[in-house]
Amino acid sequence: SSTEGHENYFSREFLDRMSEKRTDGQWLQAKQSSPASVFILFLNLNPLVTSGAEETSESKADFRLCRLRWGSVEELATRPGTTLIFLGVEKQATPPSPSPAGDEDGLTAWFALNTDSDPTEDLRLSNPNGFFLKPFVPRLLQLSSDEAGVVAQARSVLAWHDRYSFCPTCGGRTKVDEGGYKRTCLKEDCRSRQGIHNTCYPRVDPVVIMLVIHPDGNQCLLGRKKAFPAGMFSCLAGFIEPGEAVEDAVRREVEEESGVKVGPVQYLSSQPWPMPSSLMIGCLAVAVSTHIKVDENEIEEARWFTRQQVIDVFTKNNQPTFTIPPRQAIAHQLIKHWIGVHANL
Amino acid sequence: SSTEGHENYFSREFLDRMSEKRTDGQWLQAKQSSPASVFILFLNLNPLVTSGAEETSESKADFRLCRLRWGSVEELATRPGTTLIFLGVEKQATPPSPSPAGDEDGLTAWFALNTDSDPTEDLRLSNPNGFFLKPFVPRLLQLSSDEAGVVAQARSVLAWHDRYSFCPTCGGRTKVDEGGYKRTCLKEDCRSRQGIHNTCYPRVDPVVIMLVIHPDGNQCLLGRKKAFPAGMFSCLAGFIEPGEAVEDAVRREVEEESGVKVGPVQYLSSQPWPMPSSLMIGCLAVAVSTHIKVDENEIEEARWFTRQQVIDVFTKNNQPTFTIPPRQAIAHQLIKHWIGVHANL
Ligand SMILES: Nc1ncnc2c1ncn2[C@@H]1O[C@H](COP(=O)(O)O)[C@@H](O)[C@H]1O
Ligand SMILES: Nc1ncnc2c1ncn2[C@@H]1O[C@H](COP(=O)(O)O)[C@@H](O)[C@H]1O
Ligand SMILES: [Mg+2]
Ligand SMILES: [Mg+2]
Ligand SMILES: [Mg+2]
Ligand SMILES: [Mg+2]
Ligand SMILES: [Mg+2]
Ligand SMILES: [Mg+2]
Ligand SMILES: [Zn+2]
Ligand SMILES: [Zn+2]
Repeated sequence: SSTEGHENYFSREFLDRMSEKRTDGQWLQAKQSSPASVFILFLNLNPLVTSGAEETSESKADFRLCRLRWGSVEELATRPGTTLIFLGVEKQATPPSPSPAGDEDGLTAWFALNTDSDPTEDLRLSNPNGFFLKPFVPRLLQLSSDEAGVVAQARSVLAWHDRYSFCPTCGGRTKVDEGGYKRTCLKEDCRSRQGIHNTCYPRVDPVVIMLVIHPDGNQCLLGRKKAFPAGMFSCLAGFIEPGEAVEDAVRREVEEESGVKVGPVQYLSSQPWPMPSSLMIGCLAVAVSTHIKVDENEIEEARWFTRQQVIDVFTKNNQPTFTIPPRQAIAHQLIKHWIGVHANL
Repeated sequence: SSTEGHENYFSREFLDRMSEKRTDGQWLQAKQSSPASVFILFLNLNPLVTSGAEETSESKADFRLCRLRWGSVEELATRPGTTLIFLGVEKQATPPSPSPAGDEDGLTAWFALNTDSDPTEDLRLSNPNGFFLKPFVPRLLQLSSDEAGVVAQARSVLAWHDRYSFCPTCGGRTKVDEGGYKRTCLKEDCRSRQGIHNTCYPRVDPVVIMLVIHPDGNQCLLGRKKAFPAGMFSCLAGFIEPGEAVEDAVRREVEEESGVKVGPVQYLSSQPWPMPSSLMIGCLAVAVSTHIKVDENEIEEARWFTRQQVIDVFTKNNQPTFTIPPRQAIAHQLIKHWIGVHANL
């Protein structure tokens, strides 16, 4: 998650996932009904938040997750349109002293729920100012970095349950297992139940996102989609295809989208992007050709920008003529990294 | 795909995928019935090959793909249990001269078919010595590097069709679109048809695989699964989870599987692994603790090996006491890279 020690947004691991507990039904059950456990809530994948800035040591947050207790969500959890998943436990500086009773290990467990119908009626909310953050981009980028990491995990897994409730192998119904990290086909003779198959596990979509550097080392290639805000340019990006290495996906996507051919590729850092479940793999790529011919289905315009033009965007000098995505996007970090690198790659 | 200019097995891009042609039904149709096009065939995801070594400039292959023509597979292609996908066209050093007729662009297109019942009857095989490569590991590792890349792409996409023929969102039937790179739900009002959803696209599972270096810089951590051949040790590896960056997945999987804590992580190279559709993301990781406690569900044994012990495996000196995976596996390349690095990370 780090470029030179910096963390990308959405990648702070505030919780320990404790995957070994996912198959421990008794432990999960005890944590679920423990008054110490924290529940976060999504309505159609939009998190319940409250506004009011909270200054943390690291970042200023415009929204905070509403942290609910079992008593508030117990009824909602039993509704047919609700999915409950285990997220993990709060990381602790010093390990808690072991104690005999089931739940009494001193660990604070986190869970997430997603529901498909407005739960406000069923909730006894401690905070009456809670609301569902929608549309979630760009507002989902205004969380603290700790909470952004939790939301990335929760939203991706919940989005998988939302779209993958039927077995892709036989079309039958499935049930949720292992704290929300597995779905099992209910048809006992389904092929998905012989051996281990990815149909049963959450999906993560790897995406390459790259800053393409001009052969002269002094310009970079940025593009814009029609849907971007006016004047905004960003890095090119695309889904890695089956049977492709990271570096080859970079070369293919850049050529598809801009017509520019790429030689050397260098990995920089990665970022989860829970819209719904991408893993952004950030690279620098050195062009070996310069003529631009955009794929008009995907890109409205692509252009070479000089290092000085890009610096102007960061420093807001000389009335910059374009904008780039905010710091929470890995594209921003890739561009910022490049203007910090003085030599050619 | 490269560590210091070397290519990993399965990552040679011998074909240009020409994704822009996937939506050009007329072009695809013309190529499909062109006598110049190449068809490779899988029976339950095992490729049809012929033995007999072919020396290429780069690698000695023990098996070669049978390259069939449309006449041989035409009947098979219409069978209900058969899926046909477009792979791409052979890359050309010099662009062919354009010519008017539909198919006459001089490009050699490749397709792949997978069938679920023995097609030998229906095939008019030009090579009577063809057979289906099964079990495919380790024999799938004995192809030329060009053919390995083609098989990686074909097998991953075909495996997706094999397990994802029903719509995960509604359980209904789907149809194959875009040359095999999309499946569309047949139910017009299915949510999967509103907007763009990953349910319609092939799945790629990102996996981290890492060589963990001891804090002293002079030992590395290798483990073995019960299923490994006797005496074989390899890198630890695991699926990246939703909401996780590459580096965090490395830290989590190493700690889960071995109890060892990891600090800095460095990406090295990546490799497609079509069993059925993984993307192996290869890293070096520096341990910050050394005590080993294996997860016995997954790992039978994990051990620190000294640099000299590892060198002995490569040089076959001093009667090495363990083995590592073959050169075609990225684990082998990570280990080899490390013994070539003299300094600590
Ligand atoms: N996993 C996926 N999720 C969403 N869209 C995908 C996926 N894989 C391929 N696509 C297609 O890729 C397009 C975006 O292009 P790109 O991000 O450049 O690869 C989408 O409009 C889809 O047609
Ligand atoms: N996409 C996936 N495909 C197969 N197994 C998965 C997947 N995601 C999680 N798993 C689980 O991960 C286990 C292997 O562990 P690891 O490779 O260390 O993450 C398998 O036995 C499955 O239980
Ligand atoms: Mg794109
Ligand atoms: Mg693209
Ligand atoms: Mg693409
Ligand atoms: Mg593993
Ligand atoms: Mg795992
Ligand atoms: Mg594991
Ligand atoms: Zn099933
Ligand atoms: Zn559907």
